[in-house]
Amino acid sequence: MEALDYHAEERRKAEFDVEEMKIVWAGSRQAYEVFRKDNRTMLSRKDLFKDTLRKAAHAWKRIIELRLSEEEASKLRFFVDQPVFTDLHWGMFIPAIKGQGNDEQQQKWLPMAYKMQIIGCYAQTELGHGSNVQGLETTAIFDPETDEFVIHSPTLTSSKWWPGGLGKVSTHALVYARLITDGQDHGVHGFIVQLRSLDDHLPLPGITVGDIGMKFGSGAYNSMDNGVLRFDHVRIPRDQMLMGVSQVTREGKFMQSDVPRQLVYGTMVYVRQKIVADASCALSRAVCIATRYSVVRRQFGSHNGGPETQVIDYKTQQSRLFPLLASAYAFRFVGEWLKWLYTDVTQRLQASDFSTLPEVHACTAGLKSVTTSATADAIEECRKLCGGHGYLSSSGLPELFAVYVPACTYEGDNVVLLLQVARFLMKTVSQLGSGKKPVGTIAYMGRSEHLLQCRCEVERAEDWLKPNVILEAFEARAARMSVTCAKNLNNFPNQEEGFAQLATDLAEAAVAHVQLIIVSKFIEKLQQDIPGKGVKRQLEILFNVYALSLLHKHLGDFVASGCITPKQGALANEQLRLLYSQVRPNAIALVDAFNYTDHFLGSVLGRYDGNVYPKLYEEAWKDPLNETVVPDGYHEYIRPILKQHIRVARL
Amino acid sequence: MEALDYHAEERRKAEFDVEEMKIVWAGSRQAYEVFRKDNRTMLSRKDLFKDTLRKAAHAWKRIIELRLSEEEASKLRFFVDQPVFTDLHWGMFIPAIKGQGNDEQQQKWLPMAYKMQIIGCYAQTELGHGSNVQGLETTAIFDPETDEFVIHSPTLTSSKWWPGGLGKVSTHALVYARLITDGQDHGVHGFIVQLRSLDDHLPLPGITVGDIGMKFGSGAYNSMDNGVLRFDHVRIPRDQMLMGVSQVTREGKFMQSDVPRQLVYGTMVYVRQKIVADASCALSRAVCIATRYSVVRRQFGSHNGGPETQVIDYKTQQSRLFPLLASAYAFRFVGEWLKWLYTDVTQRLQASDFSTLPEVHACTAGLKSVTTSATADAIEECRKLCGGHGYLSSSGLPELFAVYVPACTYEGDNVVLLLQVARFLMKTVSQLGSGKKPVGTIAYMGRSEHLLQCRCEVERAEDWLKPNVILEAFEARAARMSVTCAKNLNNFPNQEEGFAQLATDLAEAAVAHVQLIIVSKFIEKLQQDIPGKGVKRQLEILFNVYALSLLHKHLGDFVASGCITPKQGALANEQLRLLYSQVRPNAIALVDAFNYTDHFLGSVLGRYDGNVYPKLYEEAWKDPLNETVVPDGYHEYIRPILKQHIRVARL
Repeated sequence: MEALDYHAEERRKAEFDVEEMKIVWAGSRQAYEVFRKDNRTMLSRKDLFKDTLRKAAHAWKRIIELRLSEEEASKLRFFVDQPVFTDLHWGMFIPAIKGQGNDEQQQKWLPMAYKMQIIGCYAQTELGHGSNVQGLETTAIFDPETDEFVIHSPTLTSSKWWPGGLGKVSTHALVYARLITDGQDHGVHGFIVQLRSLDDHLPLPGITVGDIGMKFGSGAYNSMDNGVLRFDHVRIPRDQMLMGVSQVTREGKFMQSDVPRQLVYGTMVYVRQKIVADASCALSRAVCIATRYSVVRRQFGSHNGGPETQVIDYKTQQSRLFPLLASAYAFRFVGEWLKWLYTDVTQRLQASDFSTLPEVHACTAGLKSVTTSATADAIEECRKLCGGHGYLSSSGLPELFAVYVPACTYEGDNVVLLLQVARFLMKTVSQLGSGKKPVGTIAYMGRSEHLLQCRCEVERAEDWLKPNVILEAFEARAARMSVTCAKNLNNFPNQEEGFAQLATDLAEAAVAHVQLIIVSKFIEKLQQDIPGKGVKRQLEILFNVYALSLLHKHLGDFVASGCITPKQGALANEQLRLLYSQVRPNAIALVDAFNYTDHFLGSVLGRYDGNVYPKLYEEAWKDPLNETVVPDGYHEYIRPILKQHIRVARL
Repeated sequence: MEALDYHAEERRKAEFDVEEMKIVWAGSRQAYEVFRKDNRTMLSRKDLFKDTLRKAAHAWKRIIELRLSEEEASKLRFFVDQPVFTDLHWGMFIPAIKGQGNDEQQQKWLPMAYKMQIIGCYAQTELGHGSNVQGLETTAIFDPETDEFVIHSPTLTSSKWWPGGLGKVSTHALVYARLITDGQDHGVHGFIVQLRSLDDHLPLPGITVGDIGMKFGSGAYNSMDNGVLRFDHVRIPRDQMLMGVSQVTREGKFMQSDVPRQLVYGTMVYVRQKIVADASCALSRAVCIATRYSVVRRQFGSHNGGPETQVIDYKTQQSRLFPLLASAYAFRFVGEWLKWLYTDVTQRLQASDFSTLPEVHACTAGLKSVTTSATADAIEECRKLCGGHGYLSSSGLPELFAVYVPACTYEGDNVVLLLQVARFLMKTVSQLGSGKKPVGTIAYMGRSEHLLQCRCEVERAEDWLKPNVILEAFEARAARMSVTCAKNLNNFPNQEEGFAQLATDLAEAAVAHVQLIIVSKFIEKLQQDIPGKGVKRQLEILFNVYALSLLHKHLGDFVASGCITPKQGALANEQLRLLYSQVRPNAIALVDAFNYTDHFLGSVLGRYDGNVYPKLYEEAWKDPLNETVVPDGYHEYIRPILKQHIRVARL
């Protein structure tokens, strides 16, 4: 094996079973198995769900025992690595009360939530409405006589649908509903509604609630009770409307507070920057598995009876795998920057500086879209890079894919988000002459006059190693695609109609803009002080792989817009091949740097020690089908066929 | 709903429950539920497997009762729509005995197999070897003393791994092993080996056999007992080596028969043309679901309180969906042609005409690769086109994806196949000067001199509607990419080294060649006599959508190779938008034409009548988690949290 495992020889010499010793060390088999993941895909829905509740209870017990901080606790939940109701309680319910509740509400609800005396979820989307939040149908009608809101589901499509933790667990929900006072619709607002009794967990009167059923994959998100919820005129006190931003008075008067509405964007930026960080995590897991197994797997190319070629040595494998490896690093760095951006914009908002908000919003929306789409595709590509064995659950990749893909849809559908970015781009282009200077990630548009006519100066393959050459090519491509879209839009008498007709081109321009952001943040990272022998050099190589593989993939954009010539495109491709050769000897160490334990990775193919085949073989026998030699159903369904009794068999 | 359902009103008026009437009609609930599919993803592995055995037994019973022909029987199995051991028995075991056994062997084994007195599987791939069949490690050593072969698994990696039907069901296997006589290795040959007792189904001495465990998804391929198999010096009579092509005599002498070895390619062409046909089937299912649901789903764009916009009316939806719809038709037609090609090549082989074989092999390998990769991606894209609800198992799409994706790996890994095509292309280019005229799908290379310098004459968007303009652009692109690769290969002193270094470019050239084949076969279809009002017109539109969306996707190829100008690329895109508007009003009817029943589609989102939301709601309650209002685990794991007892709880 090529893994950097200096202890390999020592480990081989060990005279005992390490796995068994781990159990002794943990104190008991049960303690060792508390957070086991290897049997997850074999459990029935009910068993998986119960097992997940068990893990969540254990995690909470440890969090309390060890008095973990909120950040430490969130890290522990991250390593439990199984979608569960606490994700929504801590990730959505509590932040929303913090962000949208007034002081009294925070004082009343947060302590209970922090102690988990109540468990909450976030009930926004409905059967008929996902992306279009303003189209939600659930109503909250104020009744001035009793000082209550009446929460109601007027139609089937107004049933709340999808909220995690809702189906079987949550005692409370943050319900988004149309606020109606005195017959007037004030749009969608949040309400705290108790769903289940704190005594016996039964739904309260007027509440119909359940799980929405199986989802993609085995294991995966089936550990979560995504739920359905209907209200039949459920009454809640007036003070359970979140009143941080808007209020309803005792008299039923609707009021906007003086708190700027833009503050709610802060939460959105926070959630989306977290999604970008998660993308890099999921992608790096998949890449780690595929890289390690590509070193172990050998196929063809044996000379004189010698060993066959490691599949990682094939250029076709490298050209599919290494760009994904580079993307994992690229997404990591843009995620770090986004975290900084969130802090920055929060400070600005608190100082009532809203100037950067449109740019920040466009950039987080775009990065959420581009990184999650790329990651979903990449996980499946990593699975294919493992050949047939990637199809086994024990490879870990099918579940990783199934659990990851909803990221493309939740918190803003990826295509809808790209169109939001495109709107911002078109607005920026239209204001170019007005003297309003574009800032931040869109600053390059201020140089669009230059970018529309600049010529790429690459003459030899190695010219493509220069960050400024790459940056200018990406800037020119993004600027030209935006400006072309803006020009084409002007051919339509009606701008909205034009936007609808050109939506696909606009989405492509948005992708170009977002890829430029990722490229430029990678360059900024390289300009930082990076210690450690050879570390910076590797990052430079990965940067070039990331940028040039994107350039190759989107060659049509670059060449058709005249940013580069076909010849320069071919030179980029040539350089890319050389770069792959430089990544190759470092590939294992580059994924080791992700620092994942075998337990967390949960993949036989991605084992640190590369001891794949014996473990694959061992795992196979654990399947429930192997509990008996002769399968259930043999006597009823196989034997009558073999014995030619099928016509008279009772099936 | 936009569905062409003239009886919709009548159906609404019906005063009884149609689903219940179906049960009455079937005779009993049990009879009605024989082939039900809706609960498949909720079953545990063992229950799913047993349920699949039950269906296979029912199917076989009906096949016998109704005296179905082999073709009819295969259609019945197709509609059962669940991977099961009979797929391999009929699809691999029997054909291989037919193709590779001699007359006596066929007379001995086929009657038993036809009656299913024995059940067979095809045991080729091993833990350590998939694509590289010549690297298989299992040995079959001839023992002249007893006139037997000794089948043995010398290493862990020589364990047979993946064969369907092997894990729990098959009584016999066709085992591929290295034939060794008198110490000499004669390469890989096939042997009929009995695995299990026909009396009690227990594995015979020396045989270790079991299931290899869970695979991607819930339901999906987990109904199949893909297996692992090890031999410990298992003895079989000499006449159980398949001797149609090679023989071992009583004395242990190895002999090649005079039957041309090329005959075995016939089987390969047969299997691969079937895979192409399956691709069009799987793709059309996914497209049917996504199209129907895109008409039902509305989001945004409500004016004055009116209904929101159907998502199919968004250009971003159309530009993702309609190319897939067009691909379903394109793959269907190229599949039909491939079926003809198989017949043609079979006749030629029988007449010892091997002239077309290399071309036929390259073209089926390439089409297998391109259509299965495109279909796998397209199913996932269709799932995303259904928004969040596509993530539910009840949408049918997660399972369709999970069950389909192995097609990219089995029967030739898609990348390995593309490189085989590329080898054929390079050989063709290198022989261009030699006077050897390329035939069939590669005939255009004979005009490469013209194709390398021709200029596309498109001046207005509508010029892109002409089939000959499109054809020449695709021919020019394919020819130029191949010729460029050939030139670059010549820069390497060692051709094999060059082939390895340029593998990615070569694979891209192969894709260009294969896409040209699909485009040209679609054109041939349009030139046939197509009756029916408006049918031909729709196919012309779909052809243009298919070709121009490919051109847009691979714009870099076309522009960088100088086949078209950037301006012409933009015109193609413009034309594409107009075409989408023409597809839109016909979209539902175009997927209705696939003629799938709701039962076969197995998708709530893809229902013929579009009555999606009430059915989604209804399906949800069937999940096992909803069997109880308070979930299993509440008392152990939720209540202690809420009641602040977690520290003292026994978890």
